[in-house]
Amino acid sequence: MELKGIGASPGIAIGKALVIKNEEIKIDKKTNVDIQAEIKKLRDAIVLSKRELEQIKNKVAHEVGEEEAEIFGAHLLVLEDPELIGETENKIKNETVNADFALNETKEMFVSIFESMDNEYMRERATDIKDVTNRVIRHILGIKVVDLSSLDEEVILVAHDLTPSDTASMDKEKVQGFLTDIGGRTSHTAIMSRTLEIPAIVGIDNATTSIKDGDILVFDGDNGVLIVNPEKSIINEYKEKKKVFEADKLELEKLIGQESLTADGRKVELAGNIGTPNDLEGLINNDAEGVGLYRTEFLYMDSDKFPDEETQYQAYKKVLEGMKDKPVVIRTLDIGGDKKLSYFHMDEEMNPFLGYRAIRLCLDKTEIFKTQLRALFRASVHGKLRIMFPMISSLEELLKAKDICEEVKEELSSESILYSKDVEIGMMIEVPSAAIISDILAKHVDFFSIGTNDLVQYTCAVDRMNQKISYLYNQFNPAVLRLINLVINNAHQEGKWVGMCGESAGDEKMIPILLGFGLDEFSMSPISILRARRLIKSLNEEDMIELAEEVLDLESAEEVEKYMDDFIASRK
Amino acid sequence: MELKGIGASPGIAIGKALVIKNEEIKIDKKTNVDIQAEIKKLRDAIVLSKRELEQIKNKVAHEVGEEEAEIFGAHLLVLEDPELIGETENKIKNETVNADFALNETKEMFVSIFESMDNEYMRERATDIKDVTNRVIRHILGIKVVDLSSLDEEVILVAHDLTPSDTASMDKEKVQGFLTDIGGRTSHTAIMSRTLEIPAIVGIDNATTSIKDGDILVFDGDNGVLIVNPEKSIINEYKEKKKVFEADKLELEKLIGQESLTADGRKVELAGNIGTPNDLEGLINNDAEGVGLYRTEFLYMDSDKFPDEETQYQAYKKVLEGMKDKPVVIRTLDIGGDKKLSYFHMDEEMNPFLGYRAIRLCLDKTEIFKTQLRALFRASVHGKLRIMFPMISSLEELLKAKDICEEVKEELSSESILYSKDVEIGMMIEVPSAAIISDILAKHVDFFSIGTNDLVQYTCAVDRMNQKISYLYNQFNPAVLRLINLVINNAHQEGKWVGMCGESAGDEKMIPILLGFGLDEFSMSPISILRARRLIKSLNEEDMIELAEEVLDLESAEEVEKYMDDFIASRK
Repeated sequence: MELKGIGASPGIAIGKALVIKNEEIKIDKKTNVDIQAEIKKLRDAIVLSKRELEQIKNKVAHEVGEEEAEIFGAHLLVLEDPELIGETENKIKNETVNADFALNETKEMFVSIFESMDNEYMRERATDIKDVTNRVIRHILGIKVVDLSSLDEEVILVAHDLTPSDTASMDKEKVQGFLTDIGGRTSHTAIMSRTLEIPAIVGIDNATTSIKDGDILVFDGDNGVLIVNPEKSIINEYKEKKKVFEADKLELEKLIGQESLTADGRKVELAGNIGTPNDLEGLINNDAEGVGLYRTEFLYMDSDKFPDEETQYQAYKKVLEGMKDKPVVIRTLDIGGDKKLSYFHMDEEMNPFLGYRAIRLCLDKTEIFKTQLRALFRASVHGKLRIMFPMISSLEELLKAKDICEEVKEELSSESILYSKDVEIGMMIEVPSAAIISDILAKHVDFFSIGTNDLVQYTCAVDRMNQKISYLYNQFNPAVLRLINLVINNAHQEGKWVGMCGESAGDEKMIPILLGFGLDEFSMSPISILRARRLIKSLNEEDMIELAEEVLDLESAEEVEKYMDDFIASRK
Repeated sequence: MELKGIGASPGIAIGKALVIKNEEIKIDKKTNVDIQAEIKKLRDAIVLSKRELEQIKNKVAHEVGEEEAEIFGAHLLVLEDPELIGETENKIKNETVNADFALNETKEMFVSIFESMDNEYMRERATDIKDVTNRVIRHILGIKVVDLSSLDEEVILVAHDLTPSDTASMDKEKVQGFLTDIGGRTSHTAIMSRTLEIPAIVGIDNATTSIKDGDILVFDGDNGVLIVNPEKSIINEYKEKKKVFEADKLELEKLIGQESLTADGRKVELAGNIGTPNDLEGLINNDAEGVGLYRTEFLYMDSDKFPDEETQYQAYKKVLEGMKDKPVVIRTLDIGGDKKLSYFHMDEEMNPFLGYRAIRLCLDKTEIFKTQLRALFRASVHGKLRIMFPMISSLEELLKAKDICEEVKEELSSESILYSKDVEIGMMIEVPSAAIISDILAKHVDFFSIGTNDLVQYTCAVDRMNQKISYLYNQFNPAVLRLINLVINNAHQEGKWVGMCGESAGDEKMIPILLGFGLDEFSMSPISILRARRLIKSLNEEDMIELAEEVLDLESAEEVEKYMDDFIASRK
């Protein structure tokens, strides 16, 4: 059987399926039970659950980070809640019912209370309660829980979707691949798989229903094709592919330390996109020449209150020091749209992608913006900082944001706090209006970084998460290519450099065009950097200028894509 | 007291406030009532309500149209529902409670049943039930209902918002102005006020709370400023203004029959935007030189099923015949976004403005599209038809839509049904990608029509309904002006004409710029046509070309707006 999804992380995976089904546990009500026996079952299950949670918590704290471990701390707290346990024991006694039934009823009562609260933070606690009581109920019922942190053998994980706690706690040595029912190239699972360098296919639709535990799976994370229980010959074929891939990886590693130069000697910068300081390892392993996009929103989203100046300063400092003298582009807070904070109320909007978000919010709530800018400028002494504003659509917004930077610098000076005088200030180009007036904006920035994901979305008026019209969401749309070309020309006219931090920057079909346009910096998932370096080293800038001109003459996305497919094929 | 809102329809209004408050009716439960007396109250109130509804229905059918009268027909049907009445009478008998209480309880039961239904059409019936039972309850309680169809004196209506049935049934002779708490220039109330030529201010926020019945009001529908209980001198000032406005209106009427030429002799076309064939009268009274936008979605939205080919044919024929040999641009179905059909399920979308709408839906559900195209081509023999596709974002979509036109024409030919060979085919420019590749698209159309409302929205990535970021929604954004200029140049290069059917086309601050860009057709609310003609006759095309060049050099919307304010002021 062959299944198809979206290739999310490259590499060949061969292994046994481990299907993670968060299926409903079947709970029957039993009456006239032995009360003492049921209470003992409950208490034993709680002890087992606590032990498990503490192990996971320690493992995550050690291998990932204290912050990520905190979710398991919250689960442990639930198990120490006397109300939850007391209520369950009372139910067993008063109604002489079985422990799993009593706990389930108590869970549902608590969950419905929390879910009905106005506060989003409290509503999210309902999920913690569900997770942890289900763990206890499984122990009461003796259902084996798949513990991803201690796997006996190498497996390919198959799940509806992987949660952050799944990916954080799993035993990375044993996991050969990820397959999920849902998600796209920018989903959590996809991003994590590339960060962890584990081959993955997402959005397979029916992975968890079609695949059974123990099925033999082979797949190629590049093309999104998965084969279930293949014939021996196919397995051998994939073993061969895997060898080629591993050999290729070794080949790529030889590029570590080399410059990113075209065959005719033009230098470009190959940088990485990151979400937290924990991603530094991937950057360094893949020889990133800088950070092209540090998405600071994760610092806010993984917290239960606005991170204070010191917390932010420490995070920025860590990344700047980690990258030594290499440049680090840090994007100021980009929430709103589909990214919410549990502790900050935002009105419901009819079209959040066209709404109150990113710089719009920061220019309105300047206290939030200033705290971040203070932390950024303080951290600037620890490395080569570049600050970038998201979602600028007009000159006024850019000038306002820059004014606030000046205010912050004056404040720091008056407090005798040091900051670097060499911080570059730039902005993202993701709103069409910004691209169209990039000649005007270029005079007021040190650099642009093109965010292709949003730029395509707005230019073509198509929500990039909306499956029904995804055929319209295409980076090769001639209008998008013209805007990218325009932005680069306008910036160069003013002597400014241009980067790209959207998905396109790491795409082998886009890189030749972007080189031809004259893009200066390409920022991508760290895992893609060495492949991009090899591709760039094999291309002549002069040829790519010609190629780009030809591409600009094409009239539709289909034509461009076909042209680039032919170009890539002709070189293999 | 001075209040400010958005000027929605020009003109000076002076008069007494009539505040329409749809406040909650206070209903007390009384027990041990005289059952027979309560049943009589109920039945009498129903008789009164029916009589009222029939009067309104006839008035609307006569003055507006049969279709619009149907909503009152639906209300009458509710009053004939034996279940609703029977249930209420039973409640009075069995619980010995008062009629208003019993009816209210019954209403709530029915409303909650209808509101919980999956079908949107059924859910909307809940509103009918509420409206009509509230009318009966008011009669039971002897509360005077403001009947807009028979007013004793001249009034200015003050309401949270006006509903289509308010504006359809009102006595237009007596209503001097509209004031509403909510809405923008494109809201229903705003569009209706311009169609009816009644001065209006919308979006005042606190109109219904700050203004009391009988307050004397004066306002200018042009600038959005309203004065409550002004001094005598102010009233006189407004009386003077009103005289000037009326005199000006007479002056404008002298322009009827004249050509729309600039002072140096360039001819442009001044057309009107309409929603139904009923708007023909306004077009003719204001000497429209054509229809620049017939929004066919109303034909679908005011129906309880997809209008069949014959119904559509009759509507299109009526408009084409009504306009004689003048051109009529009919836009194909533009639903989705904020426009839904009660009888057609559309999935909830996270960003409906970036979603499945307009041509996207028509190219997916081709049977809907083909029915409309058949009706259009059949109607084409009755006048000068131009067909226009909304929301085109790529060449592929345009070619697909044109292919379906060809299919439909072949079908008609094979059925020996006549159609005109001279139907022009065009598309709206409202998605940035379409503007950017307008050189490519221009080769495949007869004309473009620029939809500024959506073009601004997508170019600046700002939902035009979102109050919180409305400061970013600006037609003078230099990026928008550059796109408009680009589209006109690209079309002219291919020998095609360009119109504009967004709000900007009738704006005195935009018209000089658009003339300078070389726009060929301006389509607006019929009420604005003669003013636009006067303005155009006073301008030299050559000067406007210079003005447009200067405007294109400005760097922000603020600068452009100031430049145009100064230009307009310098001419007064």
